[in-house]
Amino acid sequence: MALFSRTWTKLVRLSKHVHPAEKKSVRPIVTSARREMDISGIYPPIATPFRADESIDYGKLEENINKWNQIPFRGYVVQGSNGEYAYLTKNERVELVSKVATMVPKDKLIIAGAGCESTRDTIEMTKLMSQAGAKAVLVVTPCFYKGQMTNEAMINHFTKQREKKTFSCSSTVPVILYSVPGNTTIDLAPEVIITLSKHPNIIGLKDSGGDVAKLANLVYKTKGNNFQILAGSASFLLPAYAVGCVGGVLGLANVLGHECCMLENLFKKGKMEEAKILQQRLVGPNVCVTRRFGVPGLKVAMEWFGYYGGPTRSPLQPISKETEEIIRQTFISNGFV
Amino acid sequence: MALFSRTWTKLVRLSKHVHPAEKKSVRPIVTSARREMDISGIYPPIATPFRADESIDYGKLEENINKWNQIPFRGYVVQGSNGEYAYLTKNERVELVSKVATMVPKDKLIIAGAGCESTRDTIEMTKLMSQAGAKAVLVVTPCFYKGQMTNEAMINHFTKQREKKTFSCSSTVPVILYSVPGNTTIDLAPEVIITLSKHPNIIGLKDSGGDVAKLANLVYKTKGNNFQILAGSASFLLPAYAVGCVGGVLGLANVLGHECCMLENLFKKGKMEEAKILQQRLVGPNVCVTRRFGVPGLKVAMEWFGYYGGPTRSPLQPISKETEEIIRQTFISNGFV
Amino acid sequence: MALFSRTWTKLVRLSKHVHPAEKKSVRPIVTSARREMDISGIYPPIATPFRADESIDYGKLEENINKWNQIPFRGYVVQGSNGEYAYLTKNERVELVSKVATMVPKDKLIIAGAGCESTRDTIEMTKLMSQAGAKAVLVVTPCFYKGQMTNEAMINHFTKQREKKTFSCSSTVPVILYSVPGNTTIDLAPEVIITLSKHPNIIGLKDSGGDVAKLANLVYKTKGNNFQILAGSASFLLPAYAVGCVGGVLGLANVLGHECCMLENLFKKGKMEEAKILQQRLVGPNVCVTRRFGVPGLKVAMEWFGYYGGPTRSPLQPISKETEEIIRQTFISNGFV
Amino acid sequence: MALFSRTWTKLVRLSKHVHPAEKKSVRPIVTSARREMDISGIYPPIATPFRADESIDYGKLEENINKWNQIPFRGYVVQGSNGEYAYLTKNERVELVSKVATMVPKDKLIIAGAGCESTRDTIEMTKLMSQAGAKAVLVVTPCFYKGQMTNEAMINHFTKQREKKTFSCSSTVPVILYSVPGNTTIDLAPEVIITLSKHPNIIGLKDSGGDVAKLANLVYKTKGNNFQILAGSASFLLPAYAVGCVGGVLGLANVLGHECCMLENLFKKGKMEEAKILQQRLVGPNVCVTRRFGVPGLKVAMEWFGYYGGPTRSPLQPISKETEEIIRQTFISNGFV
Repeated sequence: MALFSRTWTKLVRLSKHVHPAEKKSVRPIVTSARREMDISGIYPPIATPFRADESIDYGKLEENINKWNQIPFRGYVVQGSNGEYAYLTKNERVELVSKVATMVPKDKLIIAGAGCESTRDTIEMTKLMSQAGAKAVLVVTPCFYKGQMTNEAMINHFTKQREKKTFSCSSTVPVILYSVPGNTTIDLAPEVIITLSKHPNIIGLKDSGGDVAKLANLVYKTKGNNFQILAGSASFLLPAYAVGCVGGVLGLANVLGHECCMLENLFKKGKMEEAKILQQRLVGPNVCVTRRFGVPGLKVAMEWFGYYGGPTRSPLQPISKETEEIIRQTFISNGFV
Repeated sequence: MALFSRTWTKLVRLSKHVHPAEKKSVRPIVTSARREMDISGIYPPIATPFRADESIDYGKLEENINKWNQIPFRGYVVQGSNGEYAYLTKNERVELVSKVATMVPKDKLIIAGAGCESTRDTIEMTKLMSQAGAKAVLVVTPCFYKGQMTNEAMINHFTKQREKKTFSCSSTVPVILYSVPGNTTIDLAPEVIITLSKHPNIIGLKDSGGDVAKLANLVYKTKGNNFQILAGSASFLLPAYAVGCVGGVLGLANVLGHECCMLENLFKKGKMEEAKILQQRLVGPNVCVTRRFGVPGLKVAMEWFGYYGGPTRSPLQPISKETEEIIRQTFISNGFV
Repeated sequence: MALFSRTWTKLVRLSKHVHPAEKKSVRPIVTSARREMDISGIYPPIATPFRADESIDYGKLEENINKWNQIPFRGYVVQGSNGEYAYLTKNERVELVSKVATMVPKDKLIIAGAGCESTRDTIEMTKLMSQAGAKAVLVVTPCFYKGQMTNEAMINHFTKQREKKTFSCSSTVPVILYSVPGNTTIDLAPEVIITLSKHPNIIGLKDSGGDVAKLANLVYKTKGNNFQILAGSASFLLPAYAVGCVGGVLGLANVLGHECCMLENLFKKGKMEEAKILQQRLVGPNVCVTRRFGVPGLKVAMEWFGYYGGPTRSPLQPISKETEEIIRQTFISNGFV
Repeated sequence: MALFSRTWTKLVRLSKHVHPAEKKSVRPIVTSARREMDISGIYPPIATPFRADESIDYGKLEENINKWNQIPFRGYVVQGSNGEYAYLTKNERVELVSKVATMVPKDKLIIAGAGCESTRDTIEMTKLMSQAGAKAVLVVTPCFYKGQMTNEAMINHFTKQREKKTFSCSSTVPVILYSVPGNTTIDLAPEVIITLSKHPNIIGLKDSGGDVAKLANLVYKTKGNNFQILAGSASFLLPAYAVGCVGGVLGLANVLGHECCMLENLFKKGKMEEAKILQQRLVGPNVCVTRRFGVPGLKVAMEWFGYYGGPTRSPLQPISKETEEIIRQTFISNGFV
């Protein structure tokens, strides 16, 4: 471990001042068993069900998960952006993961959102999530002090604190980077991702930005690091597969889980023509339940498909009847209702 | 109170569908004694001092405050953006305010940052801050789900929850709105501010956006509501005064408190020529310790003037020697070192 | 045919609220044959060669075109953004097209950029381009008065002037819409494109924005209108094909024309694995010669592959030796030099 | 002149690699008589009147100018953004200036917009404008190739072409820089402006960005260069005066010319309280006729005050009756109708 630490420290240094001579000596030691975790597949970033008083309704959660368990998902992301994690207390965040862990079969992977604004809170949350049953953590980029979130700050956040203990290493579970500029306004830079992809405990990326060219380039540049990239939206799942991504964390999978898994399947079987049509049809509904109308839109659509949606936490507002009708018409005109 | 609640509910409704006929009947009942709180003047949004291990150093905090107490500030803002509040735990946030309350003379106003992402957390934090000794709270706009932070969502957040209990009313201290698009990317809309200015318990606004025209228009449109607007940056303090603002919450006041108060004084005495020169000189240093180099820049500059700056919490990074030199040269060339 | 006319009139009406009286006179001349133009395939938006004194060097242009004629391009785009059209006078723009028309075989399609800021200039330029030998025109969104470039303004610009003569119909060549937000900051809205796709003389779209989900949705929503969409960048050519686009106008094709055509070929033959690798490799070089270093970067790279690059017009600046080396290393590390 | 040229060349070089030792030797030779031109005061950037067929109506122009001549304007800006210059042909641009030159008294300064995308066109246009009667030219930042419009490119554009002949020097009239990010998305950087302020033939800046702190800093940093800064909008005229600007080019002055001049006058006489109120009242109407509804909004408001507004050129669209009513209500509620 001491050896590794030195090697890794050097890597980080190299990421800033790259020298051809030094480059050769960069030999990341990827021995960890964690590296072998296969995260390919489709995941819903599950919505958090609330009662009218905004408390978490675990009964409804279990009902939803029982239905989702019938779909060939690879696993569940608990506390992606769709989970309203920003509105949960620290205790709620951990409790939610431990409850989900009791509700899903052992072969489903539980990935828990563990990102916080400060590095120290992120380290602690990662430990708690691991203890609660998460098999990997998804760590969003911090974003409040936008002007200071430089590449260097990001590399530091994801790998070590000043006292030289990396949270990733102290974590007992592997880390998946999470870039979601629509919420954070921060698009994790390719050079940061490439540097971090060499870390033995950082195994992948969920990218919700929608820049498929970035993803193509990243797959190419991280080859050999066993680094796995997941599309962060059903709007570009097929294009992401086409350039080498291995799966997706898809808000729409809360609603149209079977269809999302079908798209994965069509691509893998090389049925590009059918895949193309299905992808085209998914964009409209997906935009409605993500970027355009957000979690309130998602929860309304969940109701139509037999899931519990329910209210969001404030300040998210319930959508109007007019908006609900727009979403419904989009699902209808694209052939999903 | 019951009467007020209904009137206020109506106001909120009107803010969406305004009818000339109805408009006349909008008669906000501003009876609350809180309305009489005068917040005009200069405030430093104080930096939070950390030890090398990132724990809060209350000893250093007291030393800083003892020095600041010599400056004719109107009071202190505890947990503005400069206070790294996004990196403090809930307990730390409250404890910090209660400590500061013991360190400042009674005639200084303590304004505590109480904003959280969810409305329910904001309500609770407001109560705790009030109990800890804050005389008013500063409530930042929530921002994570940017696409859904509509005007309606903002009005709801700042005034009431769905169950009809407004946090502002349940709060025992008045509320100051806080718009800081540099961090949140959300510029609180004039129509939202105008609507909220009629609420008996929302007494003012701190605006860090730098759009002085917006401020001029807001002062004009909120006349009669005894609504007080504070500039959120020393870069535009004089222009803000010129259009009717009543003071400022100025990161730079952590460092150049006397100079900030002097600018206030020059304006009030009508010494526009001297005020102009001082304002011109303040921009360069202010940009260095705020937008350009952030809290790490601010803390370095504090050291030069006899305050404890110390480290920031990670992921904020210490500034380089080169950057420190840029800041120093800016202070020198503008005549402050 | 009369039926169609009415359909179109209705469409335009639906897209906004015009005057019933005015509308009757909107009678697009549907000469149908244009609709049958097949624009699928790969095009270089050719660079304009200048001498040291910034005058156009037609000799070098002919040498470049002779080389490009050996590549299985579908045709040439004259005066896309890469052609520095914004720096050419009106006369130069037209002359350039007429010269190119003499240099290419008859089976290559010449598409000329005819967009101007005003609708009246665009109408005139379209006519002149048609007379100069263009087989279709590419019309960029106007953009100077950004705040007023509403969907309604766009639909009007692309279909008719107030005096009731639509420039598209007065044009003797079909129109391809051109959305290039990187230069114009205007991303032509899906609803505008869908409306315009029904116009008998608007046959396609070049989209350089990179939002592949938008393209997927547009292909789906314009089905039945024989509307053809071209990717505007080699960075996302394969993803664009995967969702139903029919080709690309690719700055990189000035340099790596064979490779761009090979990617098209691999996709069409269903060789998805090889296509994936090639697409991954193209992103790095493409970013260098487009978004990152612009036309100066493109022209330098052209020299390495036997084309004449030469200087750009000012205010575009020659790239530095350091930048040239970055581009070269990118081509080398991705296996193209 | 030879001496000057060398000195200036050196200045430009220094702006990139600043060395403390070298800095001392920067001694701009400001001998030109042009430097003595005083541009302080209020200017309307005049609207261009069109007939229904979009041709220029010089008769209406003269009527407008006769009315404006009664107002104590310092002069006229012909072909600021409000003049729809982006929609005029080269010949129209020059003719318009020559016509205006015959319509205004000798003591009014005519400043002509001469900016084009290419440096060579800008040089030529400057000469033509000078010959047509302009006393100074306003040169907007080029903007189409946004990614390549670096500080170096800007300095080059404004001072010299590669062949070492600066357009500014070849011009027989002085140059005023024009930064209007609302249309160009390019905010001319302070360091560029400071460098250019030392050029003997660049005498000032019109800044429409609204960042008053930037203006304060620029006034401070260009002291001693006799560099004059004009506010580019009535929304922040008083704040701009307060920090040292010398006047304004104000779209609103097409409509409320007397009131704009009154604000100048109140500030100069130190009547800060009255100035404050007037400034507050001007923001609402100004936003309506500039940023919010653009030239179509401006032209409608002109009609109410006895000027000819008339149609805009397409793609600018006439405003709806609803929008007209919004503008009217804003003028009424702020006390101007």
